[in-house]
Amino acid sequence: MTEPAAPLPIAGVRVAAAAAGIRYRDRPDLALLALDDGAQTAAVFTRNRFRAAPVVVAAAHLAAGAPRYLLINAGNANAGLGADGERDAAACCDALAARAGVEARQVLPFSTGVIGEPLPVARLTKALPALLDALAPDGWPAAARAIMTTDTRPKCASRTLETARGPVALTGIAKGAGMICPDMATMLAFIASDIACDRDTTAGLLRAAVADSFNAITVDGDTSTNDACTFSASGAGGVAWDALAPRDRAAFEDALGAVAGELAQAIVRDAEGATRFVTIQVEGAPSRAAARAAALTVAHSPLVKTALYAGDPNWGRIVAALGRAPLDFDIARLRCYIGDCPVFIDGARPHDYSEARAARAMAGGEITLRIVFGAGDAPGGGSDGERYTMFTSDLSEDYVKINADYRS
Amino acid sequence: MTEPAAPLPIAGVRVAAAAAGIRYRDRPDLALLALDDGAQTAAVFTRNRFRAAPVVVAAAHLAAGAPRYLLINAGNANAGLGADGERDAAACCDALAARAGVEARQVLPFSTGVIGEPLPVARLTKALPALLDALAPDGWPAAARAIMTTDTRPKCASRTLETARGPVALTGIAKGAGMICPDMATMLAFIASDIACDRDTTAGLLRAAVADSFNAITVDGDTSTNDACTFSASGAGGVAWDALAPRDRAAFEDALGAVAGELAQAIVRDAEGATRFVTIQVEGAPSRAAARAAALTVAHSPLVKTALYAGDPNWGRIVAALGRAPLDFDIARLRCYIGDCPVFIDGARPHDYSEARAARAMAGGEITLRIVFGAGDAPGGGSDGERYTMFTSDLSEDYVKINADYRS
Repeated sequence: MTEPAAPLPIAGVRVAAAAAGIRYRDRPDLALLALDDGAQTAAVFTRNRFRAAPVVVAAAHLAAGAPRYLLINAGNANAGLGADGERDAAACCDALAARAGVEARQVLPFSTGVIGEPLPVARLTKALPALLDALAPDGWPAAARAIMTTDTRPKCASRTLETARGPVALTGIAKGAGMICPDMATMLAFIASDIACDRDTTAGLLRAAVADSFNAITVDGDTSTNDACTFSASGAGGVAWDALAPRDRAAFEDALGAVAGELAQAIVRDAEGATRFVTIQVEGAPSRAAARAAALTVAHSPLVKTALYAGDPNWGRIVAALGRAPLDFDIARLRCYIGDCPVFIDGARPHDYSEARAARAMAGGEITLRIVFGAGDAPGGGSDGERYTMFTSDLSEDYVKINADYRS
Repeated sequence: MTEPAAPLPIAGVRVAAAAAGIRYRDRPDLALLALDDGAQTAAVFTRNRFRAAPVVVAAAHLAAGAPRYLLINAGNANAGLGADGERDAAACCDALAARAGVEARQVLPFSTGVIGEPLPVARLTKALPALLDALAPDGWPAAARAIMTTDTRPKCASRTLETARGPVALTGIAKGAGMICPDMATMLAFIASDIACDRDTTAGLLRAAVADSFNAITVDGDTSTNDACTFSASGAGGVAWDALAPRDRAAFEDALGAVAGELAQAIVRDAEGATRFVTIQVEGAPSRAAARAAALTVAHSPLVKTALYAGDPNWGRIVAALGRAPLDFDIARLRCYIGDCPVFIDGARPHDYSEARAARAMAGGEITLRIVFGAGDAPGGGSDGERYTMFTSDLSEDYVKINADYRS
C-alpha cells in the first residue's frame, strides 16, 4: 500500500463542486459524486433516533438499487422538519435525475449544517446544471472543500495497492468537526475505489472499515441526525474482488481501513477548538464492548478534557471517570499511564510518581492515555483481555465559543 | 414551614471552622460539626467505584455506631492514595477523638479538593484544638465557608416547622460547584435537625430527601470520589418523630426536602462558569428512570449546554440529544418547549414557530426546557406517564478556564 500526496482520481467516478448559496456566500456548498453504471455503493447512517430527511430518503433510494449520483449540500441539514423535509430532499433528487437522465431513486441526497430551517430547494436545484457540467475525475479536492461546515480544512485520503491482479486505487473525502461521536455524528464521508465488488461485499467492507475509524472517534459525545459514510466500488479499474487471493483481499481491507482511519482522525484533528489529539488506548478489559465503554467515559469527561487542554497530568480525573464507567473491574489491578509515565498502578499513585515526568507526557500536541484493566490471567495483571483504541480531542474555551456562536 | 433569613442554630449541634493551611492560605479550610450524645446520623456516599479514603473510613465508622463529630477539610480530597490515604484519614479521626474524649469510630472524616496528593495530617491535627474551642451553636455560616473549594459563595439553608408537638428546626450546609452530577459528585452536604429520630428513620428520611435534590442536579456529568451527604437528628429539641401525626411527618419531610433542594440548587447556581440556571422538566415518559435518563442526556450534551450559554433557542440540539437518549419513545408524539414556547410538536417544528418568541424564552438567567414524550393514553398525547425534574447549568468559556486552571 502506498500513500499518494494528492487525492487520486478513481476510474469510473467523477466529482464536482458548485456554489448554490444555500447558507454561505461566495464559496462552493454543493458537491456531486457521479458513479458509472455498474458501481456498487454501500452506506452506513446515523443511529440517532432522529434521522434527518436526506438520511431517510438516501436509505430508501439505496434499498431500491445501485445509485449513480451522491448529491451533498453544506449549510443546511434539512433535519427536524417532518414530512416537509423529506419532500424537499426528494425534490432535489428528482431535479438532478431529470437533468442527468436517471431515475430519482438512483440519486442519494446528503445534507449537513444547521437543523430546523427549510432547505432552499430552488437555490439548490438552480446550481445543478453547473454542477453536472463540472464533473471531472480530479474533482475530489473541490468536493472536500464544498462539504465543509465548521471544518477549518478539507479532508481527503488516498491509497494505492498493487495486487497480483493489478493496481487498485481508493480515495475518500469527509467533513466533520463538532458534534462528533461514535455511530456517525455530524460527519459525512464518501469513499470510492475502482475495484469490482458485489453489493454484499461492498457493504461488508464498509462495515469493517467504519468500526475502527469513524466509530472510534469522539469529540463531544453528541451524535447528529445526518451522519453518513458511503463506500462505492466502481469496478472500472480492472481488478475484481472475487479474483483476489486472500493476501490481496487483506491488503485491500487494510487500505480501505487506512483511508477511513485517516479521514476519521483528520476529523478529530480538526475538532472544534481542539488543541491536542488524544489517543485513548484501553487494554486488558473483560470485553471489547467494556473496553470501548471505558474509553468513551474518559473521552467524554469534561474534567478530563479540560485537564488535557491545560496539559495538566491530573490523573485523578481519569481515575474518577473510570470509577463511573459502565464496566466491572478490579481497582487493585488497574494501571493508568500518560504517555509512558505510570500515574496509577494497582489501585494507587505509584510511590515513585513524578509530576514533572507526567507533565512532560502531557506537553505535546499528541497525547496517549493508556488504561490497563488487568483482566485475564497474565502474571502481574498484564494486558491480556480485550483492547479498544479511541481518538478524541481536548475541550477548550474555543469549543464553547464556536458552539455558542454557530447560528448567530 | 417558614424560611428564616439566617441559618438557624440546631439544639444539640455545635459547629466550628478553623484555618489549618491545608492548601489555601489565610482562610478557614477545616470545619467540625459536634453532635450531642443521642444524635442519630445517616449518610449517603458517592457511587463512584473509586471511593476516597475518607469515604471508606466514614462509612466504616458510621456502621460501627452513632457518630459524635463530623470533621471536614477542604483543599485536599485524600483520594487515589491507596492504603496510605486510609491511614491518614484514620489518623485525623484518632487525633480528634483523643482530644475530645470519644472513640475514633465516633468521628466521621470528609475531604474535598485535589485528588492524589497526600493529606497534610500534621497541619490538620495541629488545628484541632482551636477547632474544638471554637464550637458554638451559631458556627454554621463559618463552616459553610470553610468547606468551599471552587465555590464562589457559601451555601446554607434552614427551615422551621410548627408541629402539633412543638417547633422543629433544620439547618444544612453544602459545598460543590464543578464535578457535580447525580449520585453525589464533589459535593458535601451536612444537614441537622433537633427532631428525635431512630436510626432507620433518619436514614430513610435522608434517602428520600436526596432523590429529588442532590441526585437531581448535574453540572458536567462527572461524579467524584468524595461525595457525601449526611443528616443528623440531634433529638435535643423536644419533638420526636414517633409522636408526630402523619400530617406533621409529611410536613417534616417537605421541610427536609426543601433544605436539601435549596442546597442542591445553590450548587447548580454556583456551577463553575455558569451563567444560567436550567430546569429540565420531563413528562409523559414510559418510566421515571426513562424520564431521568432523557433529562440527563439533554443536561450533559455539550451542544445543548453551549446553546443555553449563547441564549440560542437551537432546539435541533435538544432533539438530537433526545434522539440518542437511552429510552424508547414515539417521535410523532414528542413535544418540546423552551419556557412556554413550543419548538417541536409531534415530530416537527410547529408551522407557527416563532424564533423571536423562542429567543425571548432563552433570554433570562432561568430557563426551563419542557420535554413531553406523550406516553400514556391521554387524548392528543398529553403528559400522562412519568415525570422527572432535573437542574443543570450552561457551559461557558469560564467552565473551561476554571477547570483548566484548577491545579496550576
